[in-house]
Amino acid sequence: MVYRYKITMAYDGTDFYGFQRQPHKRTVEGTLTKIVNKMAKNPDPAIKVYGSGRTDAGVHALGQVAHFDFPFDIAEKNMLRGLNSMLPLDVQILKVEKVSSDFHARYDVSGKRYLYRMDMGEFRNPFKRRYTAQWRFPVDIDKINIALKDLIGEHDFTSFVASGSSARTNVRTIYEAKCHIDEKENELVFEFYGNGFLYNMVRIMVGVLVEIGSGSRDVHDIQRLYKVKDRTQARRTVPASGLYLKHVYYEGEDPEHPTKLPHHQR
Amino acid sequence: MVYRYKITMAYDGTDFYGFQRQPHKRTVEGTLTKIVNKMAKNPDPAIKVYGSGRTDAGVHALGQVAHFDFPFDIAEKNMLRGLNSMLPLDVQILKVEKVSSDFHARYDVSGKRYLYRMDMGEFRNPFKRRYTAQWRFPVDIDKINIALKDLIGEHDFTSFVASGSSARTNVRTIYEAKCHIDEKENELVFEFYGNGFLYNMVRIMVGVLVEIGSGSRDVHDIQRLYKVKDRTQARRTVPASGLYLKHVYYEGEDPEHPTKLPHHQR
Repeated sequence: MVYRYKITMAYDGTDFYGFQRQPHKRTVEGTLTKIVNKMAKNPDPAIKVYGSGRTDAGVHALGQVAHFDFPFDIAEKNMLRGLNSMLPLDVQILKVEKVSSDFHARYDVSGKRYLYRMDMGEFRNPFKRRYTAQWRFPVDIDKINIALKDLIGEHDFTSFVASGSSARTNVRTIYEAKCHIDEKENELVFEFYGNGFLYNMVRIMVGVLVEIGSGSRDVHDIQRLYKVKDRTQARRTVPASGLYLKHVYYEGEDPEHPTKLPHHQR
Repeated sequence: MVYRYKITMAYDGTDFYGFQRQPHKRTVEGTLTKIVNKMAKNPDPAIKVYGSGRTDAGVHALGQVAHFDFPFDIAEKNMLRGLNSMLPLDVQILKVEKVSSDFHARYDVSGKRYLYRMDMGEFRNPFKRRYTAQWRFPVDIDKINIALKDLIGEHDFTSFVASGSSARTNVRTIYEAKCHIDEKENELVFEFYGNGFLYNMVRIMVGVLVEIGSGSRDVHDIQRLYKVKDRTQARRTVPASGLYLKHVYYEGEDPEHPTKLPHHQR
């Protein structure tokens, strides 16, 4: 008898080689796996942790989700405390839920929401160097807002995917694409919600968007990029330090976009 | 001929062994001294950097001040850019001013303002672990506000000074002592402005204040601590990670408190 737990977590990605487990590297999944197994007194076979998907080295999470099967029936509250007391300070479990054994943190994803923060100061703010990227050029937010409309809907994002992607198709649907200037923080803040994002896709999109905002690309250049299907024309991949996985949506959670990505698109 | 520059800077204290230069340690003063000398092509004798005072290992600054004499007449703007381009990302020069040769970053200080941030979450927020301390117990802010009034004015802070202080007297004057709850950040935020602060004094005061707020000390315990002149009774020194040197005041800058600390008090 095992009990399935869904966990929602935040992490500072700075000191991790990304989410996904890798031999001899400090990863979030690796760290979690070690601790969950320790809590269960190292069962054989070992407990596996399944994340909603990977985040790259340096990318942060405000709401990454994972699941695992635990051999003991522990109250959610106690699992939350136990995990947080054993985890290093750069990972925090926000929520623990017991779920039925047919829930899957990866296969049941219906969408993801990302945030991207860009500091607009001339010099790097020492307190934000790990948590933002930087854009020093003047930006016309109206141009960015026009360009963001070109992202909405189903498109072939071949020009926006880094080499190394293992996706079966580069077609994805974006439901929301927003940008605002946080005056107090002097930041340009982007937010994207879609049914799935390709490898480095958000970081490549933001690179294109700030170039549009600063006038070095045509305001509708994204439409051209869809057509050319050529990653080299999108150029810039903005740094991981500005990117946050904000929320993972599961089937049925968002009534407007309840369906998960078809299997062949994952 | 030398030109005196006053610099105002912010730094993330996490990775520094404090402000003051120490052999074989990474300090802010040491880092600055190296860079200023490099910019001046390593003159002999070397340029010395004078800070407004030290901050301890892990303590942050939003407005630390220093001065140095430079052998070349460089425009303020260019000095700002030059320093920022050479400094590591955890130090940022905010302002450069040419000042007369009788300005002294340490001797002309008329007051200092400190901020202390305490996260009230049950678990550590991964993004704030370097920039706040943590207080997990319920707090009655009204009690803290009553206690803060006991801090205002001239007092003997012997109970609030860590061993190792080299001050000639423990008498200091506090002009402002405030506290509020930042609901959005779920933080308890303290602010203190006085003519000078002893070694660890803010961190010991905050420790007493949160204990008052959580009911483990009498609301007027500060008055008793003034009388007993016994550091061991203040107990707790809260962590460096929550402390920020916010502003250094110089003679005449604040019309209400224009005078510097008498020499024998420094």
